[in-house]
Amino acid sequence: MKILAVNVNTTSSMTDSICQAAAAVARSGTNVVGLTPVVGADSVEGGFESYLAAAAVMDAVVTYQGGADAVILAGFGDHGKEGLMELLEVPVVDITEAAVHTAMLLGRRFSVVTTLDRTVPHIEDRLLCFGLLSHCTSVRATGLGVLELEDTTRAREAIAHQARLAVEQDLAEVVVLGCGGMAGLDAVLAEELGVPVVEGVAAAVKTAELLVDLGLRTSKVRTYAEPRPKRLSGWPLSAEVVEVT
Amino acid sequence: MKILAVNVNTTSSMTDSICQAAAAVARSGTNVVGLTPVVGADSVEGGFESYLAAAAVMDAVVTYQGGADAVILAGFGDHGKEGLMELLEVPVVDITEAAVHTAMLLGRRFSVVTTLDRTVPHIEDRLLCFGLLSHCTSVRATGLGVLELEDTTRAREAIAHQARLAVEQDLAEVVVLGCGGMAGLDAVLAEELGVPVVEGVAAAVKTAELLVDLGLRTSKVRTYAEPRPKRLSGWPLSAEVVEVT
Amino acid sequence: MKILAVNVNTTSSMTDSICQAAAAVARSGTNVVGLTPVVGADSVEGGFESYLAAAAVMDAVVTYQGGADAVILAGFGDHGKEGLMELLEVPVVDITEAAVHTAMLLGRRFSVVTTLDRTVPHIEDRLLCFGLLSHCTSVRATGLGVLELEDTTRAREAIAHQARLAVEQDLAEVVVLGCGGMAGLDAVLAEELGVPVVEGVAAAVKTAELLVDLGLRTSKVRTYAEPRPKRLSGWPLSAEVVEVT
Amino acid sequence: MKILAVNVNTTSSMTDSICQAAAAVARSGTNVVGLTPVVGADSVEGGFESYLAAAAVMDAVVTYQGGADAVILAGFGDHGKEGLMELLEVPVVDITEAAVHTAMLLGRRFSVVTTLDRTVPHIEDRLLCFGLLSHCTSVRATGLGVLELEDTTRAREAIAHQARLAVEQDLAEVVVLGCGGMAGLDAVLAEELGVPVVEGVAAAVKTAELLVDLGLRTSKVRTYAEPRPKRLSGWPLSAEVVEVT
Amino acid sequence: MKILAVNVNTTSSMTDSICQAAAAVARSGTNVVGLTPVVGADSVEGGFESYLAAAAVMDAVVTYQGGADAVILAGFGDHGKEGLMELLEVPVVDITEAAVHTAMLLGRRFSVVTTLDRTVPHIEDRLLCFGLLSHCTSVRATGLGVLELEDTTRAREAIAHQARLAVEQDLAEVVVLGCGGMAGLDAVLAEELGVPVVEGVAAAVKTAELLVDLGLRTSKVRTYAEPRPKRLSGWPLSAEVVEVT
Amino acid sequence: MKILAVNVNTTSSMTDSICQAAAAVARSGTNVVGLTPVVGADSVEGGFESYLAAAAVMDAVVTYQGGADAVILAGFGDHGKEGLMELLEVPVVDITEAAVHTAMLLGRRFSVVTTLDRTVPHIEDRLLCFGLLSHCTSVRATGLGVLELEDTTRAREAIAHQARLAVEQDLAEVVVLGCGGMAGLDAVLAEELGVPVVEGVAAAVKTAELLVDLGLRTSKVRTYAEPRPKRLSGWPLSAEVVEVT
Repeated sequence: MKILAVNVNTTSSMTDSICQAAAAVARSGTNVVGLTPVVGADSVEGGFESYLAAAAVMDAVVTYQGGADAVILAGFGDHGKEGLMELLEVPVVDITEAAVHTAMLLGRRFSVVTTLDRTVPHIEDRLLCFGLLSHCTSVRATGLGVLELEDTTRAREAIAHQARLAVEQDLAEVVVLGCGGMAGLDAVLAEELGVPVVEGVAAAVKTAELLVDLGLRTSKVRTYAEPRPKRLSGWPLSAEVVEVT
Repeated sequence: MKILAVNVNTTSSMTDSICQAAAAVARSGTNVVGLTPVVGADSVEGGFESYLAAAAVMDAVVTYQGGADAVILAGFGDHGKEGLMELLEVPVVDITEAAVHTAMLLGRRFSVVTTLDRTVPHIEDRLLCFGLLSHCTSVRATGLGVLELEDTTRAREAIAHQARLAVEQDLAEVVVLGCGGMAGLDAVLAEELGVPVVEGVAAAVKTAELLVDLGLRTSKVRTYAEPRPKRLSGWPLSAEVVEVT
Repeated sequence: MKILAVNVNTTSSMTDSICQAAAAVARSGTNVVGLTPVVGADSVEGGFESYLAAAAVMDAVVTYQGGADAVILAGFGDHGKEGLMELLEVPVVDITEAAVHTAMLLGRRFSVVTTLDRTVPHIEDRLLCFGLLSHCTSVRATGLGVLELEDTTRAREAIAHQARLAVEQDLAEVVVLGCGGMAGLDAVLAEELGVPVVEGVAAAVKTAELLVDLGLRTSKVRTYAEPRPKRLSGWPLSAEVVEVT
Repeated sequence: MKILAVNVNTTSSMTDSICQAAAAVARSGTNVVGLTPVVGADSVEGGFESYLAAAAVMDAVVTYQGGADAVILAGFGDHGKEGLMELLEVPVVDITEAAVHTAMLLGRRFSVVTTLDRTVPHIEDRLLCFGLLSHCTSVRATGLGVLELEDTTRAREAIAHQARLAVEQDLAEVVVLGCGGMAGLDAVLAEELGVPVVEGVAAAVKTAELLVDLGLRTSKVRTYAEPRPKRLSGWPLSAEVVEVT
Repeated sequence: MKILAVNVNTTSSMTDSICQAAAAVARSGTNVVGLTPVVGADSVEGGFESYLAAAAVMDAVVTYQGGADAVILAGFGDHGKEGLMELLEVPVVDITEAAVHTAMLLGRRFSVVTTLDRTVPHIEDRLLCFGLLSHCTSVRATGLGVLELEDTTRAREAIAHQARLAVEQDLAEVVVLGCGGMAGLDAVLAEELGVPVVEGVAAAVKTAELLVDLGLRTSKVRTYAEPRPKRLSGWPLSAEVVEVT
Repeated sequence: MKILAVNVNTTSSMTDSICQAAAAVARSGTNVVGLTPVVGADSVEGGFESYLAAAAVMDAVVTYQGGADAVILAGFGDHGKEGLMELLEVPVVDITEAAVHTAMLLGRRFSVVTTLDRTVPHIEDRLLCFGLLSHCTSVRATGLGVLELEDTTRAREAIAHQARLAVEQDLAEVVVLGCGGMAGLDAVLAEELGVPVVEGVAAAVKTAELLVDLGLRTSKVRTYAEPRPKRLSGWPLSAEVVEVT
């Protein structure tokens, strides 16, 4: 099985981290291929950058020649998932959804710990649209930007601090890591916090495997039907692929 | 990995069917063991029987000596999941949740097709509590009782009829099979209907594998903490196991 | 009129307290009979014990030979009410519902003060399903277990403390006592707090009288229709009755 | 116990009917006194007339000299209940609330059958504010104006027709009569329909008895505190009382 | 264009202030005429006074002979808007709605800052019925009564204090002034707070101009159809007009 | 005052129609300038095209040199509004919001009539996020694509047909035209249907004038703060302007 893991920003080192986290949980026989958009911001932390990322992600996937059994969208928020679902027949798994669906199986309420405060309303809206907001007791910001997460010690401390507040004050029973850049931090944080910690890239890989194993694909009946043929200007752009075992 | 698949009624032939459906999607190395309660009704189709099933399911699991890496609860509705989550540390996956979480990844709205009309409000309440009702456009009844599903031709026709109405009138994009007794019918129905059909036992097996693979267990922080030690009367009853490869 | 007051745990001294509180508000001519389950926990403080209580309560009522004009279910949370409604034609009044319906007539918002923190999510879910959550501003825990309430001085202090926080911080205008073991404490707490305090057993007795007086019975149309005849295993168990004037 | 039953329109024959229906269910020792506003419309079927009724009802109650243990507000919708709750310390029971709280105890979903279509949105808004909308599956209009209900044969037929649709199409399990002018029709309709039928005046009388018996009064903590002393112009008007045993 | 600005209390100096604030933003060619009810309280701060204001406002408008292209209702809360919409064909713009609709265009969440704490639940209910509550993060009270706002220095300080808490603690991005008596304070507060401040009278004038410019009038199809002809007692009262350029 | 009216597709004849509709309601002194994206689809009818439009719209506005007092976004759905709000300080008015806010002032419930069925869920989600869904009784599709609306006779008939169903079956009291390509059809449809018809471009122009007149701008406090400076790839693209009086 081949899974295409699409980063939402243009920072290829982050694509690498995502692929490593993905590969770490992929089962034997699952091949994870990373894809970095060539258009967009080096980190996505708000509406402008998210909309741009959505176009860039669709561009990267459409121009990718290699085929895949499933696509993972590795940004927490809204980065074009619905567009990909129209363009593709194979499953598209957003790390936001994968993480939250998983968290809801493990406790009554969860909190999301993310990067900057300005991204919080975007995540709340996204969960609202997904119908997943009701068991979310808070979305908390660490104050760290996406690229600051590369300092994993600092990231771990800041996340742990907010996660503790989530458990103690917001009565969260499960913590969701709310940024693709937090991939790989779940195990150590779970140990430290004493509650389950769900990380989206890992959850998305296993969810993609689940869907492929069951032969399930995106419904083409109404919302996600293939786009009608029409005149497109300046489309597509281009894309380059970073392949990771 | 060993998964305990617990039926909610006392009909062991139905436990067998559930185990076959589970084994059909389990990956190599996953062992599915069926468990039939010794207390309760031979089919569960309402509140009285569901509450009784909940006690019986907890009894069956508590008295089971074999251990497991995860437990699947194979009834669509409310049959003691929260009790099992308190009693166990390993993941408990309800086929209701597993099916709906899966369906939400495949289309905008789903419908559940279930057995008798009287079970519909129970399923709606359950989805409401799980926070999964917002994308459910209808819960439809075939009018067939649980044990009538053993006539698979009749079951398939009745389900297909309601599923078609769900797609055409309720604008469902995905169909969820709302009874453990419908295990094994998803592929043929998907073929017939042209939309994804999600069956709970299959979804639960793969979800259990997902959670075990990621090392995730039930949060013990608040709601699902182990029951406090106290004086129990008439507990447990007993249980017998049907082992299936 | 004869009202059957069913305790949800096996502690008969608590059944006695419930019956005394019930008898204290029952009008002349209303006879309250207590019923203690023979199966279950000596106190109910979570999901496992609640599901077990539900089966035990249904067992106790089904095996009771004396008949009744209405049944009161004296546990705050989910202890089999829907099952009883299927099994019986006479009204079934849950103290959770009776208390909250009453509180909603007296002020804009109410708070529930209950026992242990772990029971809070169960009560919230129950109010959600009953459609009664919107005017509930908080469910607060005293930290006392059910059986610790028998020390009424300590109970009163702990409840008064949380109730004051509910009024001052959560803007509650009415306080609901959220445990059958708090029966009899409403008057003194109302005096102390200066806001109406609603206790469920008292509210349930008067609500049962209301329904019987109006000749109203459970609808048998759909959800609460009599269970279909089917093969039941290990059912019923047995029951013993504590008769109180 | 003395209950003041306040009509919301100026038609004294309707006050009489309301008092008769109230007296028919009041227990021995409960005295029901009718009150007809001297200001307002002879029937209330919309926003203009409801707001006018609210002022008129408050006027009638404030100028009434006789005192009472509880007040029943006999209009289905919004006719000044919150104002009365500020002005009085004794319980104020709106027939809308009393009927719906009662209906919610008898079945999973209820429908309201009312007079003209134009009143439906007002009733829906009222239930929304009361937090009682979630189990209401429909509000249906008979097309008969309030005063046309005095032809009880025609009223019964029109109500029965809509109630049947409510049960069959909207899956109502209980029917609520949505107009004070329908008082007295509940028994015959319940017989005819085979589901419980709840009438607001009867429910309100018994609810008032319940509250008085339990010594419960309106909370004066915040929303329903006594109005601050201030300069009022043209207030009060006047009122005349129709006393009924 | 002529706009009738209706005060909800009997204090004519407040009508003057409202008209001045209205005239300050009205475009050249728009004539604002103030109307003070002759019935009611000199300030409206709760349910009793609001219901009375509703009747008084409808009376004032019905007896006003001058005609108008639109009516502004200058009270924050529920003061008879729906009644006016039935009685008139020209647009009726409530300052509550106008302010909140405007605020929702400027930021993700808004807070309302109003007068006394007892009015907060009324405003929340009103926003709930208008369907505008979801982006309201808090309604905060200054503790000042309506007439105390005439001391504008004190008013400004109290409002600024609560507005700052709204921004910092409740994460409001926009502040709505929640009382007709706060007209004219928006500019200075916006300057001081660094977030947009929306005042209802100003917003309502521009909204009325918008509707009149587009030729839009109240729908007469169902809810706001003209009242049916019927016998009215004590109606109308009388009204006097304060004309302001 | 200068208003920039941004089309969301690349069809310049549609930009012209939008500008004509805008200019027709703009007051004297308001200058409307049209802007057509150079990237994207010639009509926007789903998620893929909407995401692409969002990037294209932001590109067009960012590269536009002429400045403006307000921006109108002339697509019904989600086409980058939040991104524009971050990038700009002047008000951004989406025709979706402008139309719905306006409709909510004119009747109790509104329906949206739009183009293809596949766009309906996108509009519903958008209204959900805006907090404007509660008074929307339906979103109905005509079955006509965006570019088919250029045949105005056919468009008018198809819209009128659905609008009539909305009024009769869904109980809509106001109709909202749910596509920028329907600009100019509101007056004739209102005449034909007998209910208010709100068209978004017209509503947006007047709303923009309202905001500019009141000196109100987007809050920069949290969600819509200016994007942080960061490395952007392939941004901006380019844009060309179609100037219309």
